Amino acid sequence: MTSPAQQLDPRTRAEEVWARYRTDLEQVEAQLSANLRSDVALVGEVARYVLGSGGKRFRPLVLAAAARMAGAVPDGESSPAMALLGAVVEYIHTATLLHDDVVDDGEIRRGQDAARALWGNAGSVLVGDYLYARALAMSVSVGDLDIVQALTQAVEEMSEGEVFQLSVCGDAGLTEDSYLRIVELKTASLMATAARVGGMLGGVDAARCDALAEYGRLMGIAFQVADDALDYRSDTEVFGKALGGDLKDGKITLPLLYALQRCDAAERARVERIVARDDDAPEEDLAFVLALMDRYHALDDALERARGFSLRAREILTGAFPDGPHRQALVNLAEYVVERDR
Amino acid sequence: MTSPAQQLDPRTRAEEVWARYRTDLEQVEAQLSANLRSDVALVGEVARYVLGSGGKRFRPLVLAAAARMAGAVPDGESSPAMALLGAVVEYIHTATLLHDDVVDDGEIRRGQDAARALWGNAGSVLVGDYLYARALAMSVSVGDLDIVQALTQAVEEMSEGEVFQLSVCGDAGLTEDSYLRIVELKTASLMATAARVGGMLGGVDAARCDALAEYGRLMGIAFQVADDALDYRSDTEVFGKALGGDLKDGKITLPLLYALQRCDAAERARVERIVARDDDAPEEDLAFVLALMDRYHALDDALERARGFSLRAREILTGAFPDGPHRQALVNLAEYVVERDR
Repeated sequence: MTSPAQQLDPRTRAEEVWARYRTDLEQVEAQLSANLRSDVALVGEVARYVLGSGGKRFRPLVLAAAARMAGAVPDGESSPAMALLGAVVEYIHTATLLHDDVVDDGEIRRGQDAARALWGNAGSVLVGDYLYARALAMSVSVGDLDIVQALTQAVEEMSEGEVFQLSVCGDAGLTEDSYLRIVELKTASLMATAARVGGMLGGVDAARCDALAEYGRLMGIAFQVADDALDYRSDTEVFGKALGGDLKDGKITLPLLYALQRCDAAERARVERIVARDDDAPEEDLAFVLALMDRYHALDDALERARGFSLRAREILTGAFPDGPHRQALVNLAEYVVERDR
Repeated sequence: MTSPAQQLDPRTRAEEVWARYRTDLEQVEAQLSANLRSDVALVGEVARYVLGSGGKRFRPLVLAAAARMAGAVPDGESSPAMALLGAVVEYIHTATLLHDDVVDDGEIRRGQDAARALWGNAGSVLVGDYLYARALAMSVSVGDLDIVQALTQAVEEMSEGEVFQLSVCGDAGLTEDSYLRIVELKTASLMATAARVGGMLGGVDAARCDALAEYGRLMGIAFQVADDALDYRSDTEVFGKALGGDLKDGKITLPLLYALQRCDAAERARVERIVARDDDAPEEDLAFVLALMDRYHALDDALERARGFSLRAREILTGAFPDGPHRQALVNLAEYVVERDR
């Protein structure tokens, strides 16, 4: 039997999740502001600009729902450590955005000027460094070495994933396994850590912390694979970045891998030339790739693959924790990441 | 009465310090290699290139001498934690070099191609991130939250110092106090932390840990002020970077501040124009500034100021710890930083 709430579409259900944790996220927001306490004015200026540019605080939300499911804090009460660690994962995420823009020569982020367009590579690199360091310093103040360890490992894996992606840039010979490994490192590791840290705050046993991390990992993969598909489907207006940005950057993602697996030799040769170009691909190249993806159902199949990871994430979670509102919130979020349109 | 060793010149005495801790530094070297264990080949490639490009391992040396002075390990024995934490401070230092090159658009580092000239800004930013994260993850493995806290604070302060420097770039109105604050944050904080962590490994009381940190802070300031003076005195061949590099980057350092304090209005106006330029200053501008520094004894006085910090560093140290070979090593290093020619 389906409850009335479950008859709503996934995006509406996700909005209800954000509403349920509104107080928790407000406390995260307060921590995000309070911990930018540098005497150096430019640090706060750049950091506030990026933090205020429309992020949904998805990682702090996952952390809060996982922590509450794990019993870290009774309903109706709040937890300073949970709010602080929510800010930690958001700082880490924000630092990666600042550095990614330098890596990709990005000009636009979430529909606004990227920080590097305003303060140069220097400002983006250095304020990103500040946010990484501030985040890890804040995590130390919670006093649990295991939590610090989980967070430093996530930062390490994220940078490895980015370097891996860089090292295969423009190479149409990328395997699907390597693509998924990049996604796991660069995106899923922080999602996994956000969920795991929630479990650690609740003091659940190692097996259930591992289940939460595995939920986060699978959901993070689903999130990034869906993101990579949406990169070929949306435009600046709704998604905050240009259509086909990954193609221009020479990033080979799952929709393109699917198209490459299915196309003929002449089509493949043209794709190889397009992704190997150092300059931006002309519009006709993008149109060619979009037509190819359409012909070979590459976008739909990539989204279907993302849905598979999302489903496994939900199965892991429901296998390890009893039903309840917080578990349902995490289930809804895992569903949302593959059903959003932006 | 001066011992025979003290009659040698400071550089020879410093060489003897490096020789005394050779075994410790070899163990640091082993940790530097062993901890680059990423599956991503490019991570190791970039990191090994930068780590292998002629660094003197000055920070691990300070840490080892401080740790031995503090009784962390008996003479003739080794300490895995000391070697590991030596590698941690060297990784952190290396990460800052990688990011500094991006910030400064640097092409040459220690007389070789900068990593960004070989792997682009992307490789330098991301492998720098990896080294920061790896360093902090390694420090967590030692199991002492206070040590992790000291290290994260140092990384935070270093990035703040760099942002502060960026925010006053090209501004000839920089005060001497602001200049010294930048130096303290960007350079001295890691030296202070290396010395403090040595004391923590030895388990000395808080007052002596603070004295070690103060020694490191003052020596770090002396080190950077001397470095800033040498930037106007040496050339690529002996110093590994171009003469007047700071001037080209619009960085206002102590020799220039001294010249500005003493020159006439016309000279000042020309210096203001030179440092505010976005493009590289032509050779005649550099020649003009060098002549100005010569006329107003700016380099000698900046070096004299550096010697003052070095002297206070030695006084703090000898006031807090009894005489002995390790204290003498730290004294010699503080002397060396202001007497080196490269």
